[in-house]
Amino acid sequence: MHKGRMEAFTDGVIAVIITIMVLELKLPHAATWRALLADLPVFLSYVLSFAYVGLYWNNHHHLLQAVEHVNGRVLWANLFFLFWLSLFPFTTSWLNESHPMPAPVPTAVYGIVLLLTALAWIPLLRTLITANGGSTSGLARALRGDWKTVVSPIGYLVGIVLAFFAPILSCVIYALVAAIWLVPDRRLEAGVN
Amino acid sequence: MHKGRMEAFTDGVIAVIITIMVLELKLPHAATWRALLADLPVFLSYVLSFAYVGLYWNNHHHLLQAVEHVNGRVLWANLFFLFWLSLFPFTTSWLNESHPMPAPVPTAVYGIVLLLTALAWIPLLRTLITANGGSTSGLARALRGDWKTVVSPIGYLVGIVLAFFAPILSCVIYALVAAIWLVPDRRLEAGVN
Amino acid sequence: MHKGRMEAFTDGVIAVIITIMVLELKLPHAATWRALLADLPVFLSYVLSFAYVGLYWNNHHHLLQAVEHVNGRVLWANLFFLFWLSLFPFTTSWLNESHPMPAPVPTAVYGIVLLLTALAWIPLLRTLITANGGSTSGLARALRGDWKTVVSPIGYLVGIVLAFFAPILSCVIYALVAAIWLVPDRRLEAGVN
Amino acid sequence: MHKGRMEAFTDGVIAVIITIMVLELKLPHAATWRALLADLPVFLSYVLSFAYVGLYWNNHHHLLQAVEHVNGRVLWANLFFLFWLSLFPFTTSWLNESHPMPAPVPTAVYGIVLLLTALAWIPLLRTLITANGGSTSGLARALRGDWKTVVSPIGYLVGIVLAFFAPILSCVIYALVAAIWLVPDRRLEAGVN
Repeated sequence: MHKGRMEAFTDGVIAVIITIMVLELKLPHAATWRALLADLPVFLSYVLSFAYVGLYWNNHHHLLQAVEHVNGRVLWANLFFLFWLSLFPFTTSWLNESHPMPAPVPTAVYGIVLLLTALAWIPLLRTLITANGGSTSGLARALRGDWKTVVSPIGYLVGIVLAFFAPILSCVIYALVAAIWLVPDRRLEAGVN
Repeated sequence: MHKGRMEAFTDGVIAVIITIMVLELKLPHAATWRALLADLPVFLSYVLSFAYVGLYWNNHHHLLQAVEHVNGRVLWANLFFLFWLSLFPFTTSWLNESHPMPAPVPTAVYGIVLLLTALAWIPLLRTLITANGGSTSGLARALRGDWKTVVSPIGYLVGIVLAFFAPILSCVIYALVAAIWLVPDRRLEAGVN
Repeated sequence: MHKGRMEAFTDGVIAVIITIMVLELKLPHAATWRALLADLPVFLSYVLSFAYVGLYWNNHHHLLQAVEHVNGRVLWANLFFLFWLSLFPFTTSWLNESHPMPAPVPTAVYGIVLLLTALAWIPLLRTLITANGGSTSGLARALRGDWKTVVSPIGYLVGIVLAFFAPILSCVIYALVAAIWLVPDRRLEAGVN
Repeated sequence: MHKGRMEAFTDGVIAVIITIMVLELKLPHAATWRALLADLPVFLSYVLSFAYVGLYWNNHHHLLQAVEHVNGRVLWANLFFLFWLSLFPFTTSWLNESHPMPAPVPTAVYGIVLLLTALAWIPLLRTLITANGGSTSGLARALRGDWKTVVSPIGYLVGIVLAFFAPILSCVIYALVAAIWLVPDRRLEAGVN
């Protein structure tokens, strides 16, 4: 089965997710710099979520470049991944409800959705490897020892626990995890170019 | 007429449908686990609708893989199918208005739109078969005796009637019908690979 | 310049327009059949607008099938056409504000946007003919004597004037004009197949 | 790395941005011409933002026509550009909050986002040139001496400063800068055709 239409549908879904979050940016309560500045935390959480959705699109793009085939299992693994990604506008909005400072539960839930999205990436990877030559293929070798996919869930877990003591620190950790992903996976890129 | 652009437009419409439903996920009324838990039925109905839209996309993908040609009639049958699918965000929202427990009429209407979408799939199938070799073609043979397309409308009908006695049971039935569709049509998949 | 990306962008814009209109379908004020039935005019206007946007997509698809080249002028003519089409969700919502019966001014404005969209189709047609062989080309011949593009604006004009006497009649006329377009342009289709 | 999927994703994001702005067009407070006319400034700002997003899509299309390759750096430069573009619905809405006449701070912020989007175009251009033959390539030559990319930021800066004295003049300047961009870059177009 050709991978083209799964890519096109994923592009559409991610394009809508990344864009509708701006609808949640409430207007400042007055036409002043002070009112705009009071919404800075809301803006920063928008930047963070935009970065996460953007890097997932980037990684999806790199991953799909490295494969040839998809099948029914891959389609469902992809939809499962998109499901968790689709919750980002919701968790971002809830995080913003409690500004200026993030509240513990929404901060933890934001991290939980980050964690579940990261975990949902694994079956997508596995089904793609199975459909493209199995564990001895170049794709499987290229993805062996991916330290980022190990470090990220640990970072999210630490952020989730910290949310009940210092939610602002959780947000810093979420931002740091995003930062280590800003560089796309060089191995995949190298394998393609 | 090439099928590519009809696929692209359908991907766009379904991508928007599946994603804007998250805008209907109202924020919990407080930043607590209890408030989040109180919205669990809303979340479950989001999961159900996401699954339905996702499986329709999957089946559309499998179906279009099996054909070569589209024509003006196919385009209109496709738009007619997309029309009913586009009502999912509306029926999902209305179902959620009456939480914690679903109310009879919105539960029945949710099932009616499920039923009409399933029925709208039939002219899409028929016009595609006509445009691609008719009833003696491989596509027509591949789709003969599709028990799921017979069982599903019966399930929706039972759910619609039950809505006036035990709406929660209707939702269970809608979920069960979705479950039998989670496996994509092996015959079509086999016919393509 | 290849026509592919203009088609893809147009598909995206029309997919969003046709889908976000469902966000304007307000929930019935109660979970009853009576409340749902009271919103029937709102539903009918959704059907009408969905049909119009759908048929414009269909005609755009047929038109672009008949050409090979696009240029900068075509891109702008296309954006100008999409601008008027993008106002459909707004005029549909305004029409619905005055239900059960449509109010004169919103009914007239609905028709004015229909009229301007139809007029914006003309420069798109002209620039495409110029970019693809000019007035002696097969495309220009295929589109000569297009009675629908003459009848439609007259229908809209009659609807706009009638809006100040019997707005419900205007809506009937808008629906009749949509009906004559439901059959795609056979000449273009014939020219392609 | 093939440029196709970056184009498709960008088309999706820009299609959503340009279309969801219509959701911000609040309905007139009454079903009268007078109420509609009172919202004329809101409509004009919608036209302006639609034109800006449309011309950025046009220029993106022309630019990508002139290149062959993209890489990881280009993807991030593109996302950075899309981030600023995604703020247009927000700044347009805020500008409209203060109608009939635009307020100083929202007018300045509208210009700041215009300025930052224009500046975010530069790294996109640079990374594309680097990935496609460097400063001695035809692309780099084709873009040398682009007076519009110099004049536009100056126009935005003047508009931002003027916002605190005569916001309406700022809007006129923003519209004039848009007008000089309505003609696509002839050099790129010529280089492709």
